[in-house]
Amino acid sequence: MRSIKNITAGLLLGAALTACQNTAPDAAKDAASKAAASQAKQSKASTKASGFDKTLANAKTRVDARLGSSLDIPTPLNPGGGYTHETHKANGFLLYDIGQLYKLTGDKKYAEFAAQAMMDYADVYPSWGLHPAAKEQSPGRMFWQNLNESMWLLNVAQSYDAIKDTLTDEQREKIETDLLRNMADFLSVGAPETFNKVHNHGTWATAAVGLTGYAIGDDEYVEQALLGLDKSGEAGFLKQMDVLFSPDGYYNEGPYYHRFALKPFVIFGQAVQKNNPERNIWEKRDGILKKATYSLVHQAYGGLFFPINDSIKEKGIRTDELLNAVAIVYDLTGDTGLLSIAEEQDTFVLTPESRKLAADLAAGKATPFEYASMRLGDGQNGDQGALDILKASNDPNGLAVVVKNTSQGLGHGHFDKMGLLVYDAGHEILLDYGAARFLNIEAKYGGHYLPENNTYAKQTVAHNALVVDETSHFNGDVDVGNANWPTVGEFVNEDGLKMTSAEIDTAYDDVRLGRTVAMIEDAAFDSPIIIDLMEAHADGSHSYDLPFFYKGHLIETNFELQANPRVRRPLGRTNGYQYLWKTAEAEPVDGMSQITWLLDKKFYSVTSAVPPDTQVVFTEVGATDPNFNLLPETGFMLRAQTDDGVSFLSVIEPHGDYNPTLEYTIGSHSAVKSVRHFENGGDEYIHIETKDGQRIGLGISGEVDKDMAHTIDADGTEVTWTGPYKLFHSEKHKQAEN
Amino acid sequence: MRSIKNITAGLLLGAALTACQNTAPDAAKDAASKAAASQAKQSKASTKASGFDKTLANAKTRVDARLGSSLDIPTPLNPGGGYTHETHKANGFLLYDIGQLYKLTGDKKYAEFAAQAMMDYADVYPSWGLHPAAKEQSPGRMFWQNLNESMWLLNVAQSYDAIKDTLTDEQREKIETDLLRNMADFLSVGAPETFNKVHNHGTWATAAVGLTGYAIGDDEYVEQALLGLDKSGEAGFLKQMDVLFSPDGYYNEGPYYHRFALKPFVIFGQAVQKNNPERNIWEKRDGILKKATYSLVHQAYGGLFFPINDSIKEKGIRTDELLNAVAIVYDLTGDTGLLSIAEEQDTFVLTPESRKLAADLAAGKATPFEYASMRLGDGQNGDQGALDILKASNDPNGLAVVVKNTSQGLGHGHFDKMGLLVYDAGHEILLDYGAARFLNIEAKYGGHYLPENNTYAKQTVAHNALVVDETSHFNGDVDVGNANWPTVGEFVNEDGLKMTSAEIDTAYDDVRLGRTVAMIEDAAFDSPIIIDLMEAHADGSHSYDLPFFYKGHLIETNFELQANPRVRRPLGRTNGYQYLWKTAEAEPVDGMSQITWLLDKKFYSVTSAVPPDTQVVFTEVGATDPNFNLLPETGFMLRAQTDDGVSFLSVIEPHGDYNPTLEYTIGSHSAVKSVRHFENGGDEYIHIETKDGQRIGLGISGEVDKDMAHTIDADGTEVTWTGPYKLFHSEKHKQAEN
Repeated sequence: MRSIKNITAGLLLGAALTACQNTAPDAAKDAASKAAASQAKQSKASTKASGFDKTLANAKTRVDARLGSSLDIPTPLNPGGGYTHETHKANGFLLYDIGQLYKLTGDKKYAEFAAQAMMDYADVYPSWGLHPAAKEQSPGRMFWQNLNESMWLLNVAQSYDAIKDTLTDEQREKIETDLLRNMADFLSVGAPETFNKVHNHGTWATAAVGLTGYAIGDDEYVEQALLGLDKSGEAGFLKQMDVLFSPDGYYNEGPYYHRFALKPFVIFGQAVQKNNPERNIWEKRDGILKKATYSLVHQAYGGLFFPINDSIKEKGIRTDELLNAVAIVYDLTGDTGLLSIAEEQDTFVLTPESRKLAADLAAGKATPFEYASMRLGDGQNGDQGALDILKASNDPNGLAVVVKNTSQGLGHGHFDKMGLLVYDAGHEILLDYGAARFLNIEAKYGGHYLPENNTYAKQTVAHNALVVDETSHFNGDVDVGNANWPTVGEFVNEDGLKMTSAEIDTAYDDVRLGRTVAMIEDAAFDSPIIIDLMEAHADGSHSYDLPFFYKGHLIETNFELQANPRVRRPLGRTNGYQYLWKTAEAEPVDGMSQITWLLDKKFYSVTSAVPPDTQVVFTEVGATDPNFNLLPETGFMLRAQTDDGVSFLSVIEPHGDYNPTLEYTIGSHSAVKSVRHFENGGDEYIHIETKDGQRIGLGISGEVDKDMAHTIDADGTEVTWTGPYKLFHSEKHKQAEN
Repeated sequence: MRSIKNITAGLLLGAALTACQNTAPDAAKDAASKAAASQAKQSKASTKASGFDKTLANAKTRVDARLGSSLDIPTPLNPGGGYTHETHKANGFLLYDIGQLYKLTGDKKYAEFAAQAMMDYADVYPSWGLHPAAKEQSPGRMFWQNLNESMWLLNVAQSYDAIKDTLTDEQREKIETDLLRNMADFLSVGAPETFNKVHNHGTWATAAVGLTGYAIGDDEYVEQALLGLDKSGEAGFLKQMDVLFSPDGYYNEGPYYHRFALKPFVIFGQAVQKNNPERNIWEKRDGILKKATYSLVHQAYGGLFFPINDSIKEKGIRTDELLNAVAIVYDLTGDTGLLSIAEEQDTFVLTPESRKLAADLAAGKATPFEYASMRLGDGQNGDQGALDILKASNDPNGLAVVVKNTSQGLGHGHFDKMGLLVYDAGHEILLDYGAARFLNIEAKYGGHYLPENNTYAKQTVAHNALVVDETSHFNGDVDVGNANWPTVGEFVNEDGLKMTSAEIDTAYDDVRLGRTVAMIEDAAFDSPIIIDLMEAHADGSHSYDLPFFYKGHLIETNFELQANPRVRRPLGRTNGYQYLWKTAEAEPVDGMSQITWLLDKKFYSVTSAVPPDTQVVFTEVGATDPNFNLLPETGFMLRAQTDDGVSFLSVIEPHGDYNPTLEYTIGSHSAVKSVRHFENGGDEYIHIETKDGQRIGLGISGEVDKDMAHTIDADGTEVTWTGPYKLFHSEKHKQAEN
């Protein structure tokens, strides 16, 4: 067997630069690593300098180095990560690049090289039966699973389309028959379960087969791809467009897998528009593919996707999938806000659309992208919960809140109903752990999801979400999770007040959970603040833990910390608790807990009104972790045991300015003196008093009636409002407004 | 008493923008914080846009807002951080700014405002006796200590110099007599201990008095400032120039205090050059003030100073002191490499020199700054040890190594003889904890050095330095430390080999410590590597701990980790060990320990040849720390107990490329198969074998004779070289060279 080391740098880099899902090997070292690293470095610096032209120049350099030699086309043998797998994968990306280079430059040497390579593949592909290491479900021939075969064909069909006009009839005949049709048949009629599946693997298959149909001019493939094998429309690409995204363009598994699914949608969508414009594919379902692209961009902060569910945190808008999608959607819409996204991506791909994007960006046409507060409904009809995004402004580095009121998100879903994420100043502030995985790093469980992904990262306690009786939501059962989702309340998006709420009574048998999260701007505070009202309604005795995982260093608390500085022990034994060191505990003062930490140049405080006998427990991830598989994230949790449910009302407050260079620190203390919660039936009133005597109130009613009056006695003061909610600004704010 | 809240935003910001040493209050909130934060933000963005012009515009905005009102000049009452202290401090900076604005714009309104303010000060200053909260040593009148009075006068003397031509004779008479002379007398003849002290406090005093002399045209002050009160030259500014920096421009306490001391040197130096050019002050002592500026720039990585001794890690080249110094030295030298530093500083100050710097930068005259390997000798004569800096290239983000072979550094010195710091890819890789202090953050021990600064941060075990018998160097005695320093060996700076060594036999009674650190480039490795040979020579039984504090996440070890995942306990009880959680321990395999971690996008491995029965202990800072005062830095230490000294030989190796966006990982495993250490008398031979069979050797001899031949039997192979050292490249390297 040939060693993986023999893969040349160009091959590996070609794969790397456009690789999508599969794991690249961690073995290719030596010349390969050096050349690839150097090229990647050069590539980055260069695209920064002049955008697409450099992308093109780098691709030429990369590909021209290969032109003299023929492709290595080994007989399939290895599973993912192995030599034959990686070689074919890299060949597919190389052929894509070569086709694009021909299209972009018109230089025949590229077409000739691609033709020869396709002829060589056509020589051997028909003789390949099922892959020797084929997976039982969805086996491939060139690869161990047909998903990889779809990805390969998606690349090569586009390449063939680009060069076909340069071929002789004999060449066409051979390539189409022995390679393209042979593979397309295998992926369609040969694998109906995958092809007809309404799932992203199905999208990859239909897109690949459909692109092949267009490339060779066979409408049968196109129709099958669009409408399913029986052309009924009950399966196929159009059905997938109907089902896999919500009406708002939200993808059920969350942004990490959204990204992966998006590529075949936009690539094939583009081909359908070109070849069958009468289908008006981009306008289908109110422009769902454009919405899916925008929705994914909105699900990022600091260029990285919200790490809900099984997300690798480093993934974001610079990924190949979103480079393609943004370029295509810009081409369709001319939305110059997308140029700001392209600027942040700072990388281009080998397509005419990306070239146009780069040119318009260089021409100074960019306008700010309209980041905004929004609700992204989940589920085919948008009625299975929602991802709620609150933003203080369209500043990409401004305060942002994500409330995960979505449904489960299938097997990659985490058990954090109404989980909370907060961002500010370009950083994660209250964080989601994301996936427990070191992608592609062999020494860490082969680069796969670590065992701790299931036992820790998916558990409720690993999130900023309420845990009842130290048990995860749905008792950690994915099927139960998939069958249930929160009922979302009204989404408020007004000047100075963004608000969302949700409830669920199926996460635990006897407990109904509700969470209301609001972002408020008031002159009593220097920055917008967040109100977080987490409630559980229950009759019997239960324990309640509400964790807040924070980034930064603990600075101040309003209570005395009771750390045991001589010994650390895990907080529990199951449901993820076994991975949390208990680092300290404390008792709030007079029903109020106030905790301040420092991150980079700003302070953050969480001030919480809590029930009597609540404890605050400080934690650090890393217990029961002999191999250092987990990241040592720090957190604190509000912990209460009651007979009648619980209410944790918190103000999350960015404040101050820490400047060690100029040696000043201002506003390091929370401005909140007290936060209180009053209830009257379904009505609730939240009252915040600042240290300098300003008072802010928020009245919330369970009723949507805009004309209904509500009254609550707030410690002797009668508070009245009309309609579902009302923000009572501070005197300072009112004065500033006048 | 007036509340600190009444300090206006402009005042506070003025202070903040040019503040040097003293602690700004953490109480000023409300309007002040909002305005300051907004102005600071604006300031940053603006200077980025067009350099000095924006600095000037911001200063105008800031100062113009004050012009209508008279200065608040409260009777001295509070110590540092209190209201009267901060108000006078801010007034001093404001007066400086106003003077500079007049000088730069010629607008008389500035001169008039400054004149009135100085008149107002002259009204009251003579009536002020010693400050009510005066420190026993070096008391002040306006401030609690005369250092602050010197800093105030340094600002105001410059302001007076700028506006004096606009004053009436009466105004001059009054300001000079009642304010400037009154204060200068108080700081000179009134405080001879400070004024004549060869120490940075003395430099502040002499610079302030000398600038006053130039401003009012009284040579007596100038002569006293330059030569000491008795004008003998045994004290004063010139003497301080002779003593406080080493011949290489190294400041004994390290870069953090170097920065603070530098400002009066360059500001007064500039005035001396202007008024007494015959003194040729910039050329004195081979240009020591220029050297001191360059030396400080060289003691930074990623824009931040090497955090040796009591350093706040956030301090770096953007500090006011270095903004002034770089502008002045650029004006003197025209070294366009300094424009690259200015670009990195990205901030300008209100001086003509800074304006010129910004203009030349904007004109595209910048050339790369020549970061280089260098030895900075310590001590007045450069013979008290040295700070050794090894750099792989002039890339500011390239591999860099610092070996702290310096002397103690007085009361702010840490007990880490021959401590090691490593940087790469813009990050700390092997780190020095720096000071345990949250500068200006009230909740953290008032913003002062935390108690843990003495009990942890200063201790040897908090550093990458060898600890014998779990006891700090010099048993933690500063006086003993100040009296002793390492003997440094030859500093080698050749293509492909940078090397330094040092020895000390006074850190412990019966143990002689030696460390040789080399940076090697060889084609067998993708990146330069570091060889670290740490040795202890002793006859009796001792324990040896060599810590490596690393930034990043542990990925792989060549041994099985033996963590106790259910309980964590401190590693020891004294000398800083009580602050280290023991997180795991392990036994190296066949005398070799190999540990790999991931930081950002690169891997780092330390492969060590260790004595039999060595243990590897993994640690995390944070035990015995009930208030979370310490940062949770992670480390491992090589731990041995022997009767005859110890040798820990390590290869520190940056490698690979982790790219989760493009989904490839290459080179995640160390390339080192083995590292071995051979000795023959004073000769040593280090032998590294890579996993693909390349061999690199380094022969080191205690003899400096260039013609002496050395021979070592390296496991049956005779290795021979001539001269003090010899690098034996790999075959691969030799082939690449041919």
